[in-house]
Amino acid sequence: MAETTWHRRHILSLETFTPAEYETIVQTAESFRQVLSRRTKKVPALQGQVVTNLFFEPSTRTRSSFELAAKRLSADTLNFAPGTSSLSKGETILDTAKTYLAMGTDLMVIRHQEAGVPLAIACELDRLGANVGVLNAGDGQHAHPSQALLDLFTLCSVLDAEAPSIELLKRKKIVIVGDILHSRVARSNLWSLSACGAIVHLVAPPTLLPMQFVAPFQNAIVGTHQLRQVQLHWQLEPALAGADFVMALRLQQERMTQHLLPSLREYHQQFGITRDRLSLCHSAVKLLHPGPTNRGVEISSDVMDDPALSLVSHQVTSGVAVRMALLYLMGTYHASST
Amino acid sequence: MAETTWHRRHILSLETFTPAEYETIVQTAESFRQVLSRRTKKVPALQGQVVTNLFFEPSTRTRSSFELAAKRLSADTLNFAPGTSSLSKGETILDTAKTYLAMGTDLMVIRHQEAGVPLAIACELDRLGANVGVLNAGDGQHAHPSQALLDLFTLCSVLDAEAPSIELLKRKKIVIVGDILHSRVARSNLWSLSACGAIVHLVAPPTLLPMQFVAPFQNAIVGTHQLRQVQLHWQLEPALAGADFVMALRLQQERMTQHLLPSLREYHQQFGITRDRLSLCHSAVKLLHPGPTNRGVEISSDVMDDPALSLVSHQVTSGVAVRMALLYLMGTYHASST
Amino acid sequence: MAETTWHRRHILSLETFTPAEYETIVQTAESFRQVLSRRTKKVPALQGQVVTNLFFEPSTRTRSSFELAAKRLSADTLNFAPGTSSLSKGETILDTAKTYLAMGTDLMVIRHQEAGVPLAIACELDRLGANVGVLNAGDGQHAHPSQALLDLFTLCSVLDAEAPSIELLKRKKIVIVGDILHSRVARSNLWSLSACGAIVHLVAPPTLLPMQFVAPFQNAIVGTHQLRQVQLHWQLEPALAGADFVMALRLQQERMTQHLLPSLREYHQQFGITRDRLSLCHSAVKLLHPGPTNRGVEISSDVMDDPALSLVSHQVTSGVAVRMALLYLMGTYHASST
Repeated sequence: MAETTWHRRHILSLETFTPAEYETIVQTAESFRQVLSRRTKKVPALQGQVVTNLFFEPSTRTRSSFELAAKRLSADTLNFAPGTSSLSKGETILDTAKTYLAMGTDLMVIRHQEAGVPLAIACELDRLGANVGVLNAGDGQHAHPSQALLDLFTLCSVLDAEAPSIELLKRKKIVIVGDILHSRVARSNLWSLSACGAIVHLVAPPTLLPMQFVAPFQNAIVGTHQLRQVQLHWQLEPALAGADFVMALRLQQERMTQHLLPSLREYHQQFGITRDRLSLCHSAVKLLHPGPTNRGVEISSDVMDDPALSLVSHQVTSGVAVRMALLYLMGTYHASST
Repeated sequence: MAETTWHRRHILSLETFTPAEYETIVQTAESFRQVLSRRTKKVPALQGQVVTNLFFEPSTRTRSSFELAAKRLSADTLNFAPGTSSLSKGETILDTAKTYLAMGTDLMVIRHQEAGVPLAIACELDRLGANVGVLNAGDGQHAHPSQALLDLFTLCSVLDAEAPSIELLKRKKIVIVGDILHSRVARSNLWSLSACGAIVHLVAPPTLLPMQFVAPFQNAIVGTHQLRQVQLHWQLEPALAGADFVMALRLQQERMTQHLLPSLREYHQQFGITRDRLSLCHSAVKLLHPGPTNRGVEISSDVMDDPALSLVSHQVTSGVAVRMALLYLMGTYHASST
Repeated sequence: MAETTWHRRHILSLETFTPAEYETIVQTAESFRQVLSRRTKKVPALQGQVVTNLFFEPSTRTRSSFELAAKRLSADTLNFAPGTSSLSKGETILDTAKTYLAMGTDLMVIRHQEAGVPLAIACELDRLGANVGVLNAGDGQHAHPSQALLDLFTLCSVLDAEAPSIELLKRKKIVIVGDILHSRVARSNLWSLSACGAIVHLVAPPTLLPMQFVAPFQNAIVGTHQLRQVQLHWQLEPALAGADFVMALRLQQERMTQHLLPSLREYHQQFGITRDRLSLCHSAVKLLHPGPTNRGVEISSDVMDDPALSLVSHQVTSGVAVRMALLYLMGTYHASST
């Protein structure tokens, strides 16, 4: 592992991340990806440390990815399950977090259905002078930084498997299609991809992509001079011309009952990713999806299953390496504060 | 650990297992049984490997046995819980399996309420060129190979604790009583016990043991010449004469509502294993049950609690050793394919 | 770790614990507390041993504490979850415990909503000649020894952080307030605190503290001559004069529907711990609560959050050290019996 310096105790949102930080994450993840290609896929980096998964919003998939990342760093893991917990006995979320802090948690991975909970917990732990890092594993519609970072690492790895780097993303055209308005994945990807110089095109029906959505991203300048490049589309096909990557978002079926979308069938007809539509893109186009997928809704089954087109499995694999990198980097900060 | 060769990537069903393979499993399990009698009950065989329990049908008991077997081989374990999972978000079972593959799973232990799911997953993973082994931990009414193999190892150990071997089973009379028709445990035991030369007698009420049930087993010849010996009975007591072992199956109470059985009380009167009935068997007869048991239904409590008669706890202990053996053997195949 | 002798296979209740045993636990916990202040917080004491958490009554918080304690002793852990278990298939509790014994469990941590279940399991395991220790993690309204022992260690640590000892508790005044009648925490604390020479004052409304409650404790003499000192109060404020510690119990909201209490608001007015009421105590008074807390009911939020007053987080931290001590001591007994 190369020497790296890392200056964040918590990873809550990507708004203020610099290109240098993204590059550090990509390089650290790449070194862990190499570890994971060995037969013995463990390193002793977090031996004796405790990583607690506080998933107030249940998720098997993301929790497993973090749990495996922690175990491969030789950490001990604790899993908090809200169903059988003190929460149902009237305990506040902050008190739950403080209980796991007091037990000896070093790094806390938090998912909650409400935006801002990981930040609130991090602030409270800081106020208490706790030397513990908080990683936001998804909060409401706000942010899902580890998903965006694994997407970033996936893109860099695809562009150059031998030497992935954020430099490769400059002026690449990335189309994100789906329920932009409610997607924490889209928001976090917007921050990371635009900061690395990619040109991001957002596509959704008008009910899911209001004009004012993009303003905060466009007005947030990267470093001293670089403008973030984000464009909006209400139709998919015109947006696809020359696209290097297409990222389909997961469609949450409760949007139907909110009358934001007509039907799954019509959504697929207008916004589903099919082989025909991918032919409108750059010839080497690749598809991303954060999973779990609704086959035949966001993407057609044949695209999903074509390894020449789909990066879905690649993303999952990248997820473990990137989460190892994030826990490792937070762990170096944690150790330097001890 | 003696050098062994193992030629199966997956363990899905015992239909095609040869006596030599059964012997390899018994000898490997015996060596792990010796490890488990030491104070430190771990070996580093699967250090850095990931064993994922995909239990779509919930089970604490069998999952714990596999989890402990994996941990004692020094593997890392992941547990998939369907209740809080992507399945409820519309993901297909194959996509769930592919997600855990992409995370870095080396061995996948799968239980599902529908027959054929582990096979379908194994086929899909093979099609993808994945170097991962699938172990069927119970699929519908089809097969439960690890249960039959732990039963096999238990029988061999009881027949000669110092030198267990499948040779000891030749011409032993084994009576299996209960809901044969719906039992994956009975089906898997039929394949293994008959292949090892035991004479298997099946006992059930006619609604749970149709005449045609036994044909596929009787017609499947072991190796080049050995006939499988299976006999059917609709009454218990005549079948018990000279029995070396009696295996009572678990009675699933939903059979009552399907009108396949009169009542628990009447079932116990006709097919329950009691001390009196065991006196009709060979004087050294022992009782097996895959658990969990309904005391007073399949077996009387005093038989269940008599260590001179009941092998139920012995089976559970064998379970960990046999599952270590299976994961270990699959791991050697896996390693040789890397 | 200093040499210690420990003569109990099981820890089920504190009724017969001697001051010497309490001192052993405090000293062992103190040595683990020092381990936990190091960067690598693990010791190999239980390497290769299996600690099984059988939590028939669900609890995330206490289970996490035991799980972490076991992992920090390098044990492997199994968690039994009643929701998806054999219990729903008709298995008895004793058979569930025997199954985990047969799998190779060395230490069993048991919680159950009914008083006496851990004892019944321990008796059955002893009858079978099993070399396994049972630790009661809470049974109905009967006992919760590890909670009382972590309270004891917390008190000793606060009285002298450098050299905690039960000697420091002699003639200290400790007020326990809340639902005494239904509290296993209160019962266990009564045994431990009175045996160490503290003077225990119990405070509750008469419906939750009948006169006859205290008789068994007052009549149980410690060692050869020491009387246990316990006093009852039906009002809080008169009881607080000169108190060194106040322990507020958790109020279970179902007491309301049983008409044992008027309302949460009135409970707080009469028995809630506030800053004003703490000013009636000794000037160095500290507050304990076993958690999870109902803020604004048992204690006011400002008291709970004041590190000069509240020991709640300290208790949680002590919990891991004390549970390591208990598992370690039971493990030394276990090893000597092998």
